[in-house]
Amino acid sequence: MRSINPATGEAIGADFPRSSRAELSAIADAAFDAIDFLADAPGVQLAGFLEDYAARVESDREGIARLAHEETALPYAPRLSEVEFNRTTFQLREAARALRNESWREITRDEKNNLRSSHVPLGGAVLSIGPSNFPLAFNGISGGDFCAALVARNPVIAKAHPGHCNTTARLFEHCAAARDAAGLPKAALQLFFECAPEDGEALLAHPGVAALGFTGSRAAGLRLKAVCDRLGKPASLEMSSVNPVFVASHAAESRAEVIADAWTASVLLGGGQFCTKPGVILVAGERAAARVAARAREVLAQAVPAVLLTAAVRDHANATIAALCARGAAPIVGGGATHDGQEARGIRLTPTLFAVDAAFARAHRAQVFTEAFGPLGIVVAVEGDAQLVDFARSLDGQLAATMVSDEADATTRATLLGILRFKAGRILDEAMPTGVAVSPAMVHGGPFPATGDARFSAVGLPEAAKRFSKLLCLDRVR
Amino acid sequence: MRSINPATGEAIGADFPRSSRAELSAIADAAFDAIDFLADAPGVQLAGFLEDYAARVESDREGIARLAHEETALPYAPRLSEVEFNRTTFQLREAARALRNESWREITRDEKNNLRSSHVPLGGAVLSIGPSNFPLAFNGISGGDFCAALVARNPVIAKAHPGHCNTTARLFEHCAAARDAAGLPKAALQLFFECAPEDGEALLAHPGVAALGFTGSRAAGLRLKAVCDRLGKPASLEMSSVNPVFVASHAAESRAEVIADAWTASVLLGGGQFCTKPGVILVAGERAAARVAARAREVLAQAVPAVLLTAAVRDHANATIAALCARGAAPIVGGGATHDGQEARGIRLTPTLFAVDAAFARAHRAQVFTEAFGPLGIVVAVEGDAQLVDFARSLDGQLAATMVSDEADATTRATLLGILRFKAGRILDEAMPTGVAVSPAMVHGGPFPATGDARFSAVGLPEAAKRFSKLLCLDRVR
Repeated sequence: MRSINPATGEAIGADFPRSSRAELSAIADAAFDAIDFLADAPGVQLAGFLEDYAARVESDREGIARLAHEETALPYAPRLSEVEFNRTTFQLREAARALRNESWREITRDEKNNLRSSHVPLGGAVLSIGPSNFPLAFNGISGGDFCAALVARNPVIAKAHPGHCNTTARLFEHCAAARDAAGLPKAALQLFFECAPEDGEALLAHPGVAALGFTGSRAAGLRLKAVCDRLGKPASLEMSSVNPVFVASHAAESRAEVIADAWTASVLLGGGQFCTKPGVILVAGERAAARVAARAREVLAQAVPAVLLTAAVRDHANATIAALCARGAAPIVGGGATHDGQEARGIRLTPTLFAVDAAFARAHRAQVFTEAFGPLGIVVAVEGDAQLVDFARSLDGQLAATMVSDEADATTRATLLGILRFKAGRILDEAMPTGVAVSPAMVHGGPFPATGDARFSAVGLPEAAKRFSKLLCLDRVR
Repeated sequence: MRSINPATGEAIGADFPRSSRAELSAIADAAFDAIDFLADAPGVQLAGFLEDYAARVESDREGIARLAHEETALPYAPRLSEVEFNRTTFQLREAARALRNESWREITRDEKNNLRSSHVPLGGAVLSIGPSNFPLAFNGISGGDFCAALVARNPVIAKAHPGHCNTTARLFEHCAAARDAAGLPKAALQLFFECAPEDGEALLAHPGVAALGFTGSRAAGLRLKAVCDRLGKPASLEMSSVNPVFVASHAAESRAEVIADAWTASVLLGGGQFCTKPGVILVAGERAAARVAARAREVLAQAVPAVLLTAAVRDHANATIAALCARGAAPIVGGGATHDGQEARGIRLTPTLFAVDAAFARAHRAQVFTEAFGPLGIVVAVEGDAQLVDFARSLDGQLAATMVSDEADATTRATLLGILRFKAGRILDEAMPTGVAVSPAMVHGGPFPATGDARFSAVGLPEAAKRFSKLLCLDRVR
C-alpha cells in the first residue's frame, strides 16, 4: 500500500505492508503481556516518555509537517507546521500531566466501610484508529485517542490511516525511540498499516484487545460498533455530524451577509474537512435566507477548488451532491469534482453550494442532513422561527450546533437551546463550530449517530481517558 | 397476570394487565413531554418529591414488607422490613441529596476559552426494569436505577417484575401521591406491569425513551442489549456473575473449616439469590479443598430447602444442576428441586453442593462458572497456587471476586490481585461479596458479561446517575 499525493494524484513514499491475521494476533499477544507493566509503572516514567516523544517530534517539526502536507494536501503553514503540530505536542504534554496528577482515576474513599474506588486500566490494549483529516492531532499513534489510552495506562495498537502512512511511520519512529529510551516494553505501543477487514474484526475479538478508539466515517464506525457490541468491548466512536447552524429571523434579517461570511469561512476551512464543519445553515425567513445564499454564492464562486484528503472523500462528496441533484436540487455554485485537466490535477472538488427550501429539506432529510467532507454547504430557507424550531426537534445526534440570534430572537433562542442541549455535545452562540479547543471543559462528543455514546468526550483530559478505563472498588482490601 | 406466593405456589393479589403496544407508545409520548419540566425544575422540588416518597413508604413499612414477603418468600424480618426497607429509603434520600448538591453534573469551567461543560439529562425517559431478588431496593419504581435516572433528571418508565407486582403497585401508589403533591407531571414517573417482548422492543425504539436500566438474567440482558446497541441508546445492564472466591494454599491449609463456614453462610444468604453470591470457591491444595467440601457438606445438609423467588429461578437452578450431572459431576448434598409433597409446598430447592476437581472445572468451564440463584455452591479443588492463578486468568467479567490468603500466601495474593483488578468490579480480601454497601466508593459493576460496561457502577451516587446522562459543553454561550 502506498500513499497518494492528493495534489498530484501520484503515489509517494514507501510501500507499506498489509498485516496478516497471524501478525495481528502476535501484536495483540504481545500487547497483553505489557498490561501489567503499564498498569504498575511509575506515573513519572510514562509522563517522561510522553514529554520525550513531544520533544522528539518537535525537533522534527519541518520534516513531519512536510510529509503530512505531501500526503494530505493540507496547508503546510500555518495549519500543519503550527496549528495542528502545536495541538499535538500540547496534547502529549497534557497527557503527561494527567499521568503525573492521576486526576483521571477519580479516587473515592469511604473510610467507614473501608472502600476505595478508582478508574483503572482495561486489562487489554486499545486499538486506536485515527481519521484522514488530522494526520497529527488525531493520528492513532500521536493523537487524542493515543494520549487518552495511555493516560489510562493501556497498551496502544495503532492502525495507520491509509491516507498518511508515511507521516504515521515517521511519527512512530519518534514514538519508538522515546519508548525505548524510557524503558517501556516495545509491546506497549505498536503500529500496523493495513489489514483485511475480517482480520481487523479478529483483532478486536482477541483477548489482548480491550477497547476501540475510532474516528472516521459513519459506515466504518457502524461496522466496528457492531463487532464491539457483540463482544461487549467498549468502543469510542466519532462517526459523523452535520453541525447545523440555526439562524433566528431577526438576526437573519439584520445581518444576513455577516452571517453568510462567517458560515462560508467555516465551511471552507481545511477544505471543508473538519468533523465539526457546519454543513447546513437553516435561516428563518425566506428573504433573509435568499440573502445568505446570495452572499455565500459570491464567496464560494471565488474560492479555488479544494484539494481533498483522499479519493474516498471526493467520491463521498460527489455521491452526496448527486443524491441532492437526483431529488431535484440544483447547485447554485459548483456541482461536482474537478479531477482532470491541467489546472485540476489530483483530487479536487469545486466549492459547491445548494440553496433549498424547507419543503425540500423535510422531504429529503437524509440527503440534506448528511456529513460530507469538502467545500460543500447547504442553505435551507425556513418559513419562520416556529419552523426553525421544528427542524431542531427532528435533528439526529450532532457533535455541535450553533445558534445565531439577536436580542429580539430571545424566545426562539431559548427554545432552540432547550432542544439542542439533548441533540448535540456542544452548543455555540454565534461562533462557528470548527474550532475545538483542547480543554477539560470541551466536549467533543454527542448523541448517536454522531458518536457511539453521548456520555463521553474524545477531547479534554481527564474525561477522555475515562473512555478507556474500568471502575474498580477495593472492598476491605488490606 | 397474577403474582405467585412462592411458599405456597398459589396465585395472590390483583390481576395485572398486559400493556398493548399502543398503550406503551402513549406512555413514551407522555414521558417525552415531561423532559423539559424535569430538566429545568428546581432541585429542591425534585428532592422534596423523593423525601416525601421516602416518608410515605416509611409510614407503610409493615404493609409493604408484608406484601413483598408474600410475593417473594424473602424473610419478613429483618431482611425486608428492616435491611432492604432501610436501604431503599436511604437511597431515596441520598438521591434527594444529589439533586440538591448537583454533584452528578461535574461542572467544568474554562474561563479563558469561555467553555462550561456538565452532565445533563438524556432528553428522553429511562426504561427501568428491576430484578426479582430485591423487590424494594432494586425495584424499577423505587430502587437504584429509579433514583439514578431521576437524579439525572430523566423521566422514568418502570416495568414491574412479574414476581412482585402487588408490592410494586403499592410502592407506585406512594410514588404517585408524592409526585402529585410535589407538582410533578404524571408522565415524569410511570409504571406498567407486563408487555409482549416485541412491544418492549418497540418501546425502546420510541424517541421518548433514551436509555435502559436493567437488572436481571444474562439471557434477557443480552437480548435487550442487542436492541439498544442497534438503536445507539445507552443501556445499563447488570446481568450475571459467579463472584468466585480464590483460596490460596496456606490459608486453605490453616483454616479450611472457617473459610467453608463463611462461604456457605454467603451462599445460603437470601436463599442464594444475591447477584453477588459467591457461587464457586476455588481452593488451592486438594487435601484442604476436601476439608472445605466436607465442612460445606455438613452445613448444607443441615440447611432447610430454600423457598425461591420464582419458578423461573428454580428451573434455572435445576437446569444448572442437571448440566453438571450430565457432565459427570455428582452433588454431594441435595441435587435438585423439592417442589411437591406436604413438607415442600411451593417453589423450593434443596441446598445443593458439588465438589469437583480442577480437570473437571477446566473441561466444563461454562457449566461450572455460571450464575445460578438458589442455595447451590461448587467447591473446585485446584492443584496448587499456580493453578489457582491460572483459573483467575481465564475468568470472565465478574461483579466481585474474593481473595483468601495468609501471610505466607503474599506472592499468590499479589498475583491474584494483579489479575482480578481487570476481571471484577470489586475485589475483597477475606470478606464474602454478598454485602453491597450504598456508598459513593462502591462499585457494583464489572466487565462484560457481568454488566454491559465496566466504566459504570449501578450503586453509589453520583457515579450511578452518570449512566443516565449526556455531556454538554456550552461554548461561548451567552
